[in-house]
Amino acid sequence: MHVLELETPSVLIDLDRMEANIARMQERCDALGLRFRPHTKTHKIPAIARLQVEAGAVGIVCQKVSEAEIFAAEGFNDIHIPYNILGERKTERLAQLALYNRITVSADNPKVIAGLADAAAAHDMSLRVLIELATEIGRAGCGVEDVVQLARQIEAAEHLHFAGLMVYPSVPSTRPLLQEAIDVLSRHGIGVDIVSGGGIGALQHAADIPELTELRVGTYVFNDWATVLKGYAALDDCAMHVAATVVSRPTMERAILDSGSKTLSSDTIDNGYGFILEYPQAQIYRLNEEHAYVDLSACDERPDVGERVHVIPAHTCVVTNLHDQLYGVRGDTVEVVWAVAARGKVW
Amino acid sequence: MHVLELETPSVLIDLDRMEANIARMQERCDALGLRFRPHTKTHKIPAIARLQVEAGAVGIVCQKVSEAEIFAAEGFNDIHIPYNILGERKTERLAQLALYNRITVSADNPKVIAGLADAAAAHDMSLRVLIELATEIGRAGCGVEDVVQLARQIEAAEHLHFAGLMVYPSVPSTRPLLQEAIDVLSRHGIGVDIVSGGGIGALQHAADIPELTELRVGTYVFNDWATVLKGYAALDDCAMHVAATVVSRPTMERAILDSGSKTLSSDTIDNGYGFILEYPQAQIYRLNEEHAYVDLSACDERPDVGERVHVIPAHTCVVTNLHDQLYGVRGDTVEVVWAVAARGKVW
Repeated sequence: MHVLELETPSVLIDLDRMEANIARMQERCDALGLRFRPHTKTHKIPAIARLQVEAGAVGIVCQKVSEAEIFAAEGFNDIHIPYNILGERKTERLAQLALYNRITVSADNPKVIAGLADAAAAHDMSLRVLIELATEIGRAGCGVEDVVQLARQIEAAEHLHFAGLMVYPSVPSTRPLLQEAIDVLSRHGIGVDIVSGGGIGALQHAADIPELTELRVGTYVFNDWATVLKGYAALDDCAMHVAATVVSRPTMERAILDSGSKTLSSDTIDNGYGFILEYPQAQIYRLNEEHAYVDLSACDERPDVGERVHVIPAHTCVVTNLHDQLYGVRGDTVEVVWAVAARGKVW
Repeated sequence: MHVLELETPSVLIDLDRMEANIARMQERCDALGLRFRPHTKTHKIPAIARLQVEAGAVGIVCQKVSEAEIFAAEGFNDIHIPYNILGERKTERLAQLALYNRITVSADNPKVIAGLADAAAAHDMSLRVLIELATEIGRAGCGVEDVVQLARQIEAAEHLHFAGLMVYPSVPSTRPLLQEAIDVLSRHGIGVDIVSGGGIGALQHAADIPELTELRVGTYVFNDWATVLKGYAALDDCAMHVAATVVSRPTMERAILDSGSKTLSSDTIDNGYGFILEYPQAQIYRLNEEHAYVDLSACDERPDVGERVHVIPAHTCVVTNLHDQLYGVRGDTVEVVWAVAARGKVW
């Protein structure tokens, strides 16, 4: 099928760029001696995870148990879920998943560890647990002062295995924290096998944090306007382009596209919602669900009603989650239509 | 099923409140002599649209052709799509839809009207077209100076019928514009059957715009934190509650919920992402895809890890679009599980 046969809005993936992104990340991790574990949240598509594993990834990352179920059913059997899994129904599903797969989760508090231990014991199987350390972003994670107690709780549970430490994001300022945690655990006779880093710029910072053994990165596979603005990718590394149509030109300075927040999401970078390839001076300054408002005042050339344009979104992962299909394109040809198999899996 | 058997995050709809919202809106429109046409984007569920029509709505609104196809297949045959429909594949689908249904679209420029005319002629059927007038929000819409020419273009097309005018939003400042447009059309011998207003506060402003004949409102069916803050609904009118779990309590002042932007969307109101019913002083101040960051510093009572809370989201419509199911709840009982049939329909 010719790409112009797709209606708009459609989310196109440039296959040449995606393949180059996958190869480059793996080469760089190999060169650093780091095990690479792609975060599947960016694509949510088993066929793309397959390409990542074939390139050399040691396994995958999912953020939810329900996502891991999708990927496990497709044969991915080494899955890391970097999240506190809570609630009897969730830990029950997690335990069932771990019966035939190597499942590693994270925890930052005793209650989560207790729930994991109960579920693993009930199913007589083993769960691997990383301790999540708090970082400067102030999200989840425990303090260094808690790691020995948590690691001992994990090791004391017959069916849990203390697998190591994880942080998000792994930027140079987190190194002293990791060193301190590894040191205090070592002084208490507890070894740390895995030190897992992650986040959009994790590769670029990895050489400065030699304690890391694994990286979790997702966005690199497609990249987006945020990765470009942060200097982690070039415009030509962006594999996701949202095809959109100019549906209205109410004034000389304004265009309206059919790619609103239902297509691009409301995530922003620098107060913008993406970059229009054909009109680099244009600014997508507001979204409603089915309308993107574009300021054309800085543009020499301006689009007509009915014209098709292509938007690099501000944040690629959240775009994937809004769509039932992504379209893999090479040149002008739609080579593959992927169902976004793990879209909308929130449990 | 007891509501606590649902894992989190789950989107709960309080059936008593939803039914009261539907009845109240219809009564008020009836009292004003206004035809009411609910916008289905808020729920995307035919069974709820059925309740709205049974209460007295004259038809429904969809924002996309692909959404209208879902509702038409469920028997809704008077559908308004207030959008410029462009592109041969879309106008072809629109024309097929209009063969057996009463379909009204909008247009704000000659190119859209020409495309509609071609598709309607090719299928030898009739399409009803409203002219969209620009309002103060600066989205789509033509100026009053264009309405006569556009109305003549519509009337000149054998298979198009000029149905009237539409605005979004219909606030008092739009009234002079509507009066002027109706006046100039009248002076050129063109009658205006429908004057369609819409938006979150359209009901509250309707009495000040007696030119209106129809209202398009969606949000009222569930309401959300934005409608409360804007004074259009009370807290007890909010029917959508997102059940979430406290998955981490990294500090005394911070909680992390499992309802991130993949559950609540990134839409904000007053820099917040929603209102936590159990902790009214808490502030959801940031979201990642699977993490909501909550500031508890103003709270006397604070939640424990594992505790279930309920969030009224900032914007209800975009939450619906992220989920495969909504759960209709009465008291503690899940009375109905609805598939969000028109979720993700962007074409």
